[in-house]
Amino acid sequence: MSDVKATQNGAAFSRARRGLSSPSSQLLLPTLVLKMLYLIGLGLGDAEDITVKGLEIVKKCNRVYLEAYTSILSVEKERLEQFYGRPLIVADRQTVEQEAEQIIKDADVSDIAFLVVGDPFGATTHSDLILRAVKMGVPYRIIHNASILSAVGCCGLQLYNFGEVASIVFWTRTWKPESFFDRVKANRQNGLHTLCLLDLQIKELSLENLIKGRKIYEPPRFMTVNQAAQQLLEIVQNQRARGEEPAITEETMCVGLARVGSEEQKIAAGTLQQMATVDLGGPLHSLIITGNLHPLEVEMLKLFPMPEDGS
Amino acid sequence: MSDVKATQNGAAFSRARRGLSSPSSQLLLPTLVLKMLYLIGLGLGDAEDITVKGLEIVKKCNRVYLEAYTSILSVEKERLEQFYGRPLIVADRQTVEQEAEQIIKDADVSDIAFLVVGDPFGATTHSDLILRAVKMGVPYRIIHNASILSAVGCCGLQLYNFGEVASIVFWTRTWKPESFFDRVKANRQNGLHTLCLLDLQIKELSLENLIKGRKIYEPPRFMTVNQAAQQLLEIVQNQRARGEEPAITEETMCVGLARVGSEEQKIAAGTLQQMATVDLGGPLHSLIITGNLHPLEVEMLKLFPMPEDGS
Repeated sequence: MSDVKATQNGAAFSRARRGLSSPSSQLLLPTLVLKMLYLIGLGLGDAEDITVKGLEIVKKCNRVYLEAYTSILSVEKERLEQFYGRPLIVADRQTVEQEAEQIIKDADVSDIAFLVVGDPFGATTHSDLILRAVKMGVPYRIIHNASILSAVGCCGLQLYNFGEVASIVFWTRTWKPESFFDRVKANRQNGLHTLCLLDLQIKELSLENLIKGRKIYEPPRFMTVNQAAQQLLEIVQNQRARGEEPAITEETMCVGLARVGSEEQKIAAGTLQQMATVDLGGPLHSLIITGNLHPLEVEMLKLFPMPEDGS
Repeated sequence: MSDVKATQNGAAFSRARRGLSSPSSQLLLPTLVLKMLYLIGLGLGDAEDITVKGLEIVKKCNRVYLEAYTSILSVEKERLEQFYGRPLIVADRQTVEQEAEQIIKDADVSDIAFLVVGDPFGATTHSDLILRAVKMGVPYRIIHNASILSAVGCCGLQLYNFGEVASIVFWTRTWKPESFFDRVKANRQNGLHTLCLLDLQIKELSLENLIKGRKIYEPPRFMTVNQAAQQLLEIVQNQRARGEEPAITEETMCVGLARVGSEEQKIAAGTLQQMATVDLGGPLHSLIITGNLHPLEVEMLKLFPMPEDGS
């Protein structure tokens, strides 16, 4: 079967390594010391959101990388290191994209873990790393965990009723892309909700520093529900100014979510206009633009009223 | 904020219970012994796929229910009980739908855990249980985990490129619903992939036993990728017979997935026609009907070739 050929789940390898009975394990064990690249999801909240299986693997790995550019946990790296009992190597975008071989290196003789907030194939995919591992003959295994893509179901909107995911990026003075809005429009036309993942910029270079080749990074930025809603309101106004009928209005029901899965989680349901000013606290934020609402969904959203003081 | 009002994450309560400093905790602690209803995701593979946080909670709960009608783990109940160190009360559809009060009962004075395969708000939602808990004044908390809805990303198709989820139910001789196909069609028209969740029937009564009021349950049934593909091929033929242009053909690229997240996971990419005969082994199965494929997705799917013997 393909899993043995491509080693996508390493079943044959782990069977052999644990000495479980399989027709060939006794033959293979003395010579087969194949190691593994593990991609391990950390879930969404804090250190204890790793799975029991994931934690056991991290504890025995020779090198443990923490992917730190597509999402963040609500805990510090030091807290994770303490909990895992292992030092973490922070892998920023440059490391992963340009030094993937370094990460995979030696994985044929030592176990390597690559930790990803959420699920390794959730909001971000690490296909590149896997394709390289396979090319280098290194087997890999994925340890899944909660992803924001499914955890947003906690607000009571049914995941069945979501359409395509949209991403909202920070606008600049000169670059204000509206193209993601087509997805919102298509989903709304089909009565579907849209999960909007909001931009985060970690270790980004300013244009000036980029041009001058200086590795002076900007402070991390996380788009809030307010900023996303303000950009959406501007798109609505722009469309009206162009004589178009916008797919949403100031009164469209939205759900703002912050730090989903953590103890400090906050959820508020209200109009797009309200989302522009609601205070949901620190990162990470997500925004849902609703489509048609089922009565059960309406009941659930009532559990998450807007804060009375509007903040 | 809404989280305190509706207690959807129990932050205030858990702070108080752990005696952490908050303005009112010292005042509240002597009288506040509020307990909690925990909805805990178990992930997709085996016992060790529960999160560290989830396991800690299960170990201290007074009653632990295992929701056993919308999905299954690849391990026996006894194995779970051994691993958790707690007896499990199996909650079938009838228990959850008709005896929800029984489940929540006493949750104001003792901690209750309700375990769900995958994520508590993934493929199935347990909004009903939560609404009842809130009505009964019982705070609740959700411990997220991997859901099939996001874990299918392990085949290399980008979750960004998925449209609405579809469900394929078992056809009978007289009831052959095709309505889910509209979702596949809409997704394909937008170039999007469709995840098809396949029917499973656990503790179902036959029509005869239902009429006679006999609680003699049918053996569990899990739809295979083969059965789903055969039903899809029949729909395609029916549409052609009616002179319609079907949204997919026998040659449409599909991905069959079995036991995602477990060590025995199997994935095979091939045409819809091939899916009708591929042998992916035991439950649970899922089927993806692809839309437009990105080159990186094509590369990833090559890791999961069809078995050479076609079985």
